[in-house]
Amino acid sequence: MEIHPMWKNYPSLEKELTKTETLIEESIKLSNKKVQVAILKMVHSGGKMLRPAYQILFSQFGPEQNEEKRIALAAAIETLHTATLIHDDIVDEALTRRNLPTIQSQFGKDIAVYAGDYLFVVCFKLLSDYTSSLKSIQLNSRSMEKILSGELGQMDQRYNLNLTISDYIQNVSGKTAELFGLSCFIGAFESGCSDTFSNKCRNIGVSIGIAFQIIDDILDYSQEENTLGKPVLEDVRQGVYSLPLLYALQKQPESFLPILKKKNKMTAEDVSKIYLLVHKYDGVKKSQKLAKKYTEKALKEIADLPDNELNSAKTIYDITETILLRKN
Amino acid sequence: MEIHPMWKNYPSLEKELTKTETLIEESIKLSNKKVQVAILKMVHSGGKMLRPAYQILFSQFGPEQNEEKRIALAAAIETLHTATLIHDDIVDEALTRRNLPTIQSQFGKDIAVYAGDYLFVVCFKLLSDYTSSLKSIQLNSRSMEKILSGELGQMDQRYNLNLTISDYIQNVSGKTAELFGLSCFIGAFESGCSDTFSNKCRNIGVSIGIAFQIIDDILDYSQEENTLGKPVLEDVRQGVYSLPLLYALQKQPESFLPILKKKNKMTAEDVSKIYLLVHKYDGVKKSQKLAKKYTEKALKEIADLPDNELNSAKTIYDITETILLRKN
Repeated sequence: MEIHPMWKNYPSLEKELTKTETLIEESIKLSNKKVQVAILKMVHSGGKMLRPAYQILFSQFGPEQNEEKRIALAAAIETLHTATLIHDDIVDEALTRRNLPTIQSQFGKDIAVYAGDYLFVVCFKLLSDYTSSLKSIQLNSRSMEKILSGELGQMDQRYNLNLTISDYIQNVSGKTAELFGLSCFIGAFESGCSDTFSNKCRNIGVSIGIAFQIIDDILDYSQEENTLGKPVLEDVRQGVYSLPLLYALQKQPESFLPILKKKNKMTAEDVSKIYLLVHKYDGVKKSQKLAKKYTEKALKEIADLPDNELNSAKTIYDITETILLRKN
Repeated sequence: MEIHPMWKNYPSLEKELTKTETLIEESIKLSNKKVQVAILKMVHSGGKMLRPAYQILFSQFGPEQNEEKRIALAAAIETLHTATLIHDDIVDEALTRRNLPTIQSQFGKDIAVYAGDYLFVVCFKLLSDYTSSLKSIQLNSRSMEKILSGELGQMDQRYNLNLTISDYIQNVSGKTAELFGLSCFIGAFESGCSDTFSNKCRNIGVSIGIAFQIIDDILDYSQEENTLGKPVLEDVRQGVYSLPLLYALQKQPESFLPILKKKNKMTAEDVSKIYLLVHKYDGVKKSQKLAKKYTEKALKEIADLPDNELNSAKTIYDITETILLRKN
């Protein structure tokens, strides 16, 4: 399996991402061969590998250049991301991801629980074998803590009709932005950048992550109406209200409340109504505006990064523009 | 909630275990208050805290005595153990543990997945904040890798009628003994003992863990027949064959095979038959013999430990005798 085509214009990065994927593959050694194969298929399923890409790019700013370590830390982050996906699929009862059957749908929830746990451990193994200080592990643990506390917090807020935009941003900050922030931080920090500079990189990652998640949530409302499928249907029925819905709900609560109050009893027709109402009351438009705000914040901060021989800031800028200005 | 009464004869250990429990409590900070309370109840549910107890006792052999660190590492191990229990309960669909409803039965599998993940992270957070070297984290990761690889391996072997005693011991070594071994190792190593001595402590922990698990599996076959409940029923029906069954099965396969081949279609009556057959064909007796072998191995190695002011070896010997010679 080849690396995602978006990297073909960045040959040296593409090469390191390929090595990252190989190292992940080599680090997964289970005697249960069926699960081993399923996890490897997931690793090779053509994800964008955005988090390791950012980690590698931000590592180009420091004085200490060590490819082996760089690749190992990138592999750790991507493994962590894959672990969270496996567990998210249990929670969402997802049947497929990236056009492959999920681990939970293939082997059941029990295997999926341990498979995700196993990848968490592989992440810590890679980190502790290659990091030069305990600090990255401390930060990794704290980031994961925020991610999981965010997931559990979000579950607590299901069906909460009074959820604010600020609650949403806080959940997104935990759920998605934290790992982007960590990738950028560890990249810079482990290549010998100062704490101050590394934290600046972290902030860039957080802005990228927030914009990334908002755009993902907008995409749910940007499909053709007749392909309106599982994502919107399931999230709204399960009481997970994303930004476009929240904006529209705030503007015209009386149109939404009778439908939303049906909770998981909502029909496909109800979901179609929600879809139209979200568009009618500017939920998508306002969300696009907020995504743009975070995108511009990130791009502005990236433009301020120092020059280096590899032109890293330019690459980071281009990639960020590409992923955050997709179809919105 | 007080600490388990088995420690009341060891006041200084009891005090440190109480502090360990308090630190675990302080380390769990979730905005989802319901889950927070449920996890804390589980922490306080009167488990024996054997792993942190061994860790604390083995830490008394080294030259570096630092109570804060010792307590933190003990809390890390117990938190890890609790995380695995929460995930095990998902896999086993267990309704109760230590007479409390399990997290999964109270809040569903989705919350239980993240709650276990969260505790894994708390473990790594405590470890990385208090350990003095990366080595303990590397070893912790490797131990967890073995534990999870063991769990996944065991799942692969469900309903395997050709499972050998050696397969069983290998599974138990991963599932239970690894964490006992790690507790003893980290205790010694982090208090400044040599690698050689720390590894010796690890081996003691592994023997204790194997004996402990065999005895646990024997207990399933030692209940009054009319209280023959969930444990045996569920394990055998789910295709998890423990030592007493394996020994008896090897001796008289033709009596067992017609029943076991029903797999999860086995009735309560079938399970009663299995129970009687296991006793009839010496499954319990032979298991007791093997448990005794590992117990004696552990006690012999403990007796060889050096003297110190706190009489640690004596305490370790007494405790090990108490827990491994219970009712068999």
